[in-house]
Amino acid sequence: MSTPQGKVMMNPNDVVMLLIDHQSGLFNLVKDMSVSQLRNNVIALAKVAAMLKIPVITTASVPEGPNGPVIPEIQQFAPHVKYVPRQGQINAWDVPMFVKAVEETKRKTVVMTGTLTSVCLAFPAICAVQAGYKVYAVVDASGNWSKMATDLTIARIVQAGVIPIDTFAVIGELQQTWNRPDALDYANLFGEHIIPNYRLLMESHKKAQEASGQK
Amino acid sequence: MSTPQGKVMMNPNDVVMLLIDHQSGLFNLVKDMSVSQLRNNVIALAKVAAMLKIPVITTASVPEGPNGPVIPEIQQFAPHVKYVPRQGQINAWDVPMFVKAVEETKRKTVVMTGTLTSVCLAFPAICAVQAGYKVYAVVDASGNWSKMATDLTIARIVQAGVIPIDTFAVIGELQQTWNRPDALDYANLFGEHIIPNYRLLMESHKKAQEASGQK
Amino acid sequence: MSTPQGKVMMNPNDVVMLLIDHQSGLFNLVKDMSVSQLRNNVIALAKVAAMLKIPVITTASVPEGPNGPVIPEIQQFAPHVKYVPRQGQINAWDVPMFVKAVEETKRKTVVMTGTLTSVCLAFPAICAVQAGYKVYAVVDASGNWSKMATDLTIARIVQAGVIPIDTFAVIGELQQTWNRPDALDYANLFGEHIIPNYRLLMESHKKAQEASGQK
Amino acid sequence: MSTPQGKVMMNPNDVVMLLIDHQSGLFNLVKDMSVSQLRNNVIALAKVAAMLKIPVITTASVPEGPNGPVIPEIQQFAPHVKYVPRQGQINAWDVPMFVKAVEETKRKTVVMTGTLTSVCLAFPAICAVQAGYKVYAVVDASGNWSKMATDLTIARIVQAGVIPIDTFAVIGELQQTWNRPDALDYANLFGEHIIPNYRLLMESHKKAQEASGQK
Amino acid sequence: MSTPQGKVMMNPNDVVMLLIDHQSGLFNLVKDMSVSQLRNNVIALAKVAAMLKIPVITTASVPEGPNGPVIPEIQQFAPHVKYVPRQGQINAWDVPMFVKAVEETKRKTVVMTGTLTSVCLAFPAICAVQAGYKVYAVVDASGNWSKMATDLTIARIVQAGVIPIDTFAVIGELQQTWNRPDALDYANLFGEHIIPNYRLLMESHKKAQEASGQK
Amino acid sequence: MSTPQGKVMMNPNDVVMLLIDHQSGLFNLVKDMSVSQLRNNVIALAKVAAMLKIPVITTASVPEGPNGPVIPEIQQFAPHVKYVPRQGQINAWDVPMFVKAVEETKRKTVVMTGTLTSVCLAFPAICAVQAGYKVYAVVDASGNWSKMATDLTIARIVQAGVIPIDTFAVIGELQQTWNRPDALDYANLFGEHIIPNYRLLMESHKKAQEASGQK
Amino acid sequence: MSTPQGKVMMNPNDVVMLLIDHQSGLFNLVKDMSVSQLRNNVIALAKVAAMLKIPVITTASVPEGPNGPVIPEIQQFAPHVKYVPRQGQINAWDVPMFVKAVEETKRKTVVMTGTLTSVCLAFPAICAVQAGYKVYAVVDASGNWSKMATDLTIARIVQAGVIPIDTFAVIGELQQTWNRPDALDYANLFGEHIIPNYRLLMESHKKAQEASGQK
Amino acid sequence: MSTPQGKVMMNPNDVVMLLIDHQSGLFNLVKDMSVSQLRNNVIALAKVAAMLKIPVITTASVPEGPNGPVIPEIQQFAPHVKYVPRQGQINAWDVPMFVKAVEETKRKTVVMTGTLTSVCLAFPAICAVQAGYKVYAVVDASGNWSKMATDLTIARIVQAGVIPIDTFAVIGELQQTWNRPDALDYANLFGEHIIPNYRLLMESHKKAQEASGQK
Repeated sequence: MSTPQGKVMMNPNDVVMLLIDHQSGLFNLVKDMSVSQLRNNVIALAKVAAMLKIPVITTASVPEGPNGPVIPEIQQFAPHVKYVPRQGQINAWDVPMFVKAVEETKRKTVVMTGTLTSVCLAFPAICAVQAGYKVYAVVDASGNWSKMATDLTIARIVQAGVIPIDTFAVIGELQQTWNRPDALDYANLFGEHIIPNYRLLMESHKKAQEASGQK
Repeated sequence: MSTPQGKVMMNPNDVVMLLIDHQSGLFNLVKDMSVSQLRNNVIALAKVAAMLKIPVITTASVPEGPNGPVIPEIQQFAPHVKYVPRQGQINAWDVPMFVKAVEETKRKTVVMTGTLTSVCLAFPAICAVQAGYKVYAVVDASGNWSKMATDLTIARIVQAGVIPIDTFAVIGELQQTWNRPDALDYANLFGEHIIPNYRLLMESHKKAQEASGQK
Repeated sequence: MSTPQGKVMMNPNDVVMLLIDHQSGLFNLVKDMSVSQLRNNVIALAKVAAMLKIPVITTASVPEGPNGPVIPEIQQFAPHVKYVPRQGQINAWDVPMFVKAVEETKRKTVVMTGTLTSVCLAFPAICAVQAGYKVYAVVDASGNWSKMATDLTIARIVQAGVIPIDTFAVIGELQQTWNRPDALDYANLFGEHIIPNYRLLMESHKKAQEASGQK
Repeated sequence: MSTPQGKVMMNPNDVVMLLIDHQSGLFNLVKDMSVSQLRNNVIALAKVAAMLKIPVITTASVPEGPNGPVIPEIQQFAPHVKYVPRQGQINAWDVPMFVKAVEETKRKTVVMTGTLTSVCLAFPAICAVQAGYKVYAVVDASGNWSKMATDLTIARIVQAGVIPIDTFAVIGELQQTWNRPDALDYANLFGEHIIPNYRLLMESHKKAQEASGQK
Repeated sequence: MSTPQGKVMMNPNDVVMLLIDHQSGLFNLVKDMSVSQLRNNVIALAKVAAMLKIPVITTASVPEGPNGPVIPEIQQFAPHVKYVPRQGQINAWDVPMFVKAVEETKRKTVVMTGTLTSVCLAFPAICAVQAGYKVYAVVDASGNWSKMATDLTIARIVQAGVIPIDTFAVIGELQQTWNRPDALDYANLFGEHIIPNYRLLMESHKKAQEASGQK
Repeated sequence: MSTPQGKVMMNPNDVVMLLIDHQSGLFNLVKDMSVSQLRNNVIALAKVAAMLKIPVITTASVPEGPNGPVIPEIQQFAPHVKYVPRQGQINAWDVPMFVKAVEETKRKTVVMTGTLTSVCLAFPAICAVQAGYKVYAVVDASGNWSKMATDLTIARIVQAGVIPIDTFAVIGELQQTWNRPDALDYANLFGEHIIPNYRLLMESHKKAQEASGQK
Repeated sequence: MSTPQGKVMMNPNDVVMLLIDHQSGLFNLVKDMSVSQLRNNVIALAKVAAMLKIPVITTASVPEGPNGPVIPEIQQFAPHVKYVPRQGQINAWDVPMFVKAVEETKRKTVVMTGTLTSVCLAFPAICAVQAGYKVYAVVDASGNWSKMATDLTIARIVQAGVIPIDTFAVIGELQQTWNRPDALDYANLFGEHIIPNYRLLMESHKKAQEASGQK
Repeated sequence: MSTPQGKVMMNPNDVVMLLIDHQSGLFNLVKDMSVSQLRNNVIALAKVAAMLKIPVITTASVPEGPNGPVIPEIQQFAPHVKYVPRQGQINAWDVPMFVKAVEETKRKTVVMTGTLTSVCLAFPAICAVQAGYKVYAVVDASGNWSKMATDLTIARIVQAGVIPIDTFAVIGELQQTWNRPDALDYANLFGEHIIPNYRLLMESHKKAQEASGQK
């Protein structure tokens, strides 16, 4: 559990994003957070990947069965996503094509999500650390079957060297600064998907300035 | 607290919808439910009003001050909305133009919301009952400053003869049947705004039928 | 909200049980209680209806769509159940064949459940009171989309004269006494479906008596 | 539980405020809300009484014993308060001088608090209704020993005809309008004592307008 | 649900206490409150009954089976208790000897508890109201199998005219005043059994006075 | 707390399962999760052990006393289980025959549960790590006397090198792939015992495909 | 955070128990657990120390001031306790006489509690680890001012090498086996103070065996 | 994550306090604790810094935009505070002037807060550890957008070597002893801002001593 060497914060140019098993059926099993927040957090990750040209790889577990289809927003908001099918493997890291897709990005920092957290996120996250990657597990963009299972999974992956993180922190760490041409896109990302109160602040702020100007 | 006479369910043609003080600043005070759910519930009410041509009246409390502007979705999704300004009155029912606007609809069933519940919903709801209306208070499309305050308000308004209700029930009561040409609009309303798990069911169902056809 | 006249407790021979919209899809929307407990509570009601030869009527809302099929245990454990199809009506009491089926039982005490509570239980419960029935709403055998919606619904139906009740109370009220030949069936019903700790008590009690005999 | 006749909202000129047993020792027993919020809610009531010249009567239960002294802010912020000592009576309404003090105000609307809610608020509230007063019980300015006890007390007092209310609603009902010379005092009352997020709104609004002016 | 006529507070000389089915097995089913608090609340009721010579009647449901024995503290602290056996009846009010025992006390105010609340308290409470008694249901000295079941039961019994109450309120209402020779016994009752923080206040108060004297 | 060397995921052929003190009396003490979920999680572990021929060892703490008998499902669903009696030792690892039974399996990966978690799971788990085993502690198939105790125990065992895990993750890790002849058995295992919503998905999926075929 | 070498479980003969600042005033600040449970957990530790002749050292922070006196049960149930006064130091480990008292026991395993956890437990616990002791922090026999503060403290002390533990685990680890002459004392300790449901099991078990014998 | 060498407790003379992004807008996003407690905890840190002449550095993220102004109490209670503006950087440690300001204090122990915790606290805290500082993160004086995000952040920063702590512990660790001339200032700090129950104790204690003196 030693601190990673070199720069301790993410370098957007070294990041690959793995969005695993975000399927409509599996989302119906989620009990540790609201499905609405989960879905929005995944959308926000897809959007920021598109904004920063971060490679995105998805996969799904038996999408034609009860697990259901991948939610369409990933393709919609990150059209550059690469989909890797599986032949039944539960751990995406057991799929050679999946690991190969990661390797081909030449990136060594993995931002990973997976529904359900205990399995679809935890298994490949632990394996990716073992394979030498710096791995961030975005637990609140994953979704799990019980709160107790999530608490156990956080403890397990931290013990294994995975870095636990939330959606807002991932995007803030990738954004780095508000002093950039697309800053408003980030503000909208936070306001529309992650922190609805932020949108309220933006609306109130704009109105206050308008009201001030009218005086 | 006698049971209302006549038909006990709402008649959509007798309903007027009053959406009171849904302002960005006030939404930042809400602690009894998620702001995201609240905003979506209000949007859903605006949409169903438009679908059923139910008159909608809004008002706001000092929108140029800290309370902030009315959220734009009401105007966006219910463009037929009538806005009644106030001169500082806290209780919208104290505003003659507001009461007159209600009266002019010739409708006697009021579906009412108000941010914050304890004040902006409770006060006019109690007054409207006193004025002879059948009043439904949509508590989960209102938002309050504490859970305890909401519990107290529900008890108070029920005692005063107001009918407490949730957003899903209001819309279901107005919709009446799935056997109508615009049934899909209702399904989308539930799935996109009120019950995100319902959207998951729709996605899974469609995929299951496609997968079945492909076999 | 006057106290019902005559005997205040249920008479099993006057009861008809209405189990409304217990469908696999709708169960996936339930957020106010555990789905496992909900399913077991419904099973327990079906079983007790069979034991006491109480008529059972079910219905479903568009079961071939996202709402999904009726859970099979109702038919399995109460084979005498009568199923009434609907043509899209949301409120089962809007279906003449459904009301007729109730009337044909000649019973005036209705024990009712419905998924989701706010709509599928609340609407027909209120209408049945209006129609002169004594109506018990078994809220914890219904399932709703939010806890706040359930709190609002309980307040609403009580205001309308419906009697709120839990599954354990319904069965205890129907059972009346442990001094009956089938008492063990009731104990098993509680232990297997409603109160898992009761099964533990039965197991421990038996073991304690065996251990005592071995001394 | 009939709706009170005449005007259904409070008339500030008809209100007398009874703040019962707000003592430092008793506050240490409070488990249904935060002591910080409770203390601030009581202060807010004292302040609004001073602003509107509403008579205030306090009393204490054995303040020299473990129950402790009355919190000093009542005297501090409502210096016109009248203190009525007791000779051990638990129910303040059992104290003739207390009832007499209420009668001498000639006011018929009672806004009442009491620590602990189950006893010190509930007992005199029920008696005051019986004596013909219109009684508002401010439950979140009272404090109780358990959440379950508060739920039971709300149900009990509503059944007895007491009107349950929260601190924010009381003050809003007394304030009536923002169109008054002392409006800022009310805004500060809400921001400093009841809803801390409101103060944040005021600060942000002011800054936004200043920033707008600087552009 | 009309307000009871005459004096609205309990008269200790008119009270009979019914403690129903407080059995070790059944206590193991309690999930709506802590078993420790429940047991202490029952003990406190037994003690206050002894202090005020209030008649106490107990009964048990099949105590030789899994439901287990009556907790011994009732007999220990209220040795004047009368035990009425049952022949399997679930509702104690169905047992003629039980009703007769109540009638023989000539008292018309019933303070009642029952484990589990939904059944063993609710059934006889509703029947006793029907039989003309003023009935207080001490919900936090009863214990139930789920929080939702307790919420439903409170709504049901209030609807039926039963007065809901908590243990602290019952004892405060019976005690009436601190100006009595046995006041310390009441203080100890609260401190040892109901509100552990009250005992801390007593200890701190005594120490503070001793420390003051030593100065 | 170094990451285990070699393959980081479980090898089913190296696993031995230790199910400790799952007794009816002890289950009555469980307060950190629902007893129903606990019992089902234990059953699921027994079933998967049988499916994968994983050796299972059980033991019990004074089963003829208040702790009660071992729940019968372990023997029922894993008939190959080996039972090791104890002579009063609290820590199963203090029993030489128990340790010997583990050693005789020649397996080095231990999946362990124990009721109550703080003691019956934590003590042998820590000892087994010390003895060189890779130890997985299935906390949600154990059951503890308080939530705080569970939080403390997770922190303690992680500090000692035990891997915390939930029931769903254990089975997913053992199953490895859906591409196996007995895949349906795994789906049923999840749906019937661990995640009731998964069963709903299966039912809805089947119905959707049937409905599609009928079109 | 390396695993301690040698035997990983406590040796009762090497344990010294430090019960820090269990004062009536400070107990009134506790918000992360029930005061009743806290007080009983401390009593249980005092009793087990007496049973196993484990040295006990207490101390208090300004007991003549608002912090209040040490609860009397420590002296009552562990009369061999040694009290070390302080001259205002917040961290007991800053008091040379306190450290000396620990050293004089010649024991190297410290079982420590402290009210409030964040300060009175955490500070000396971290220092004792630094001084070479093996330190167990009994968090649920300490009490803290907020749940968040407790979560933070557990994380902090684990990071510093302190072993977190709950009261039940401490006593189970010291007891080692039920096969000892004073086993019943341990059962009573659990049933009377720590796990009230255990007492219920004992009562039910005894009754079941008696009932069996009577058949 | 090795234990820091040398003295394990803070040395007030080596501490620099960094209060980051405590802005009115951002406070409106806080959902993991009450805003009232958060604001008071920050005030308490500012006050103790002034009392101990600890250098304080603040900064803000775009304070003229929706994030809002820095709360004025920091300047008010710690007038020696140094404010470092940013040019949009999200991570304060990315601002050379900010790092330089820290370095110029010549102090190596950092007590840090930041709104929101996941980003504004976590990022610079991790960087400061990397830069060789001993870093305390005061999580309950920071505020975050969700409870789950806070749980994840605590796990992340502990893994990175940051020491998690609460406000009360920071101040207690800096205060060291009650045996100091300004002890009352510390008592008031706790009572007015952090632990409102402590103020109640002080009031009750004073009253008890006065009452004792009057006897």
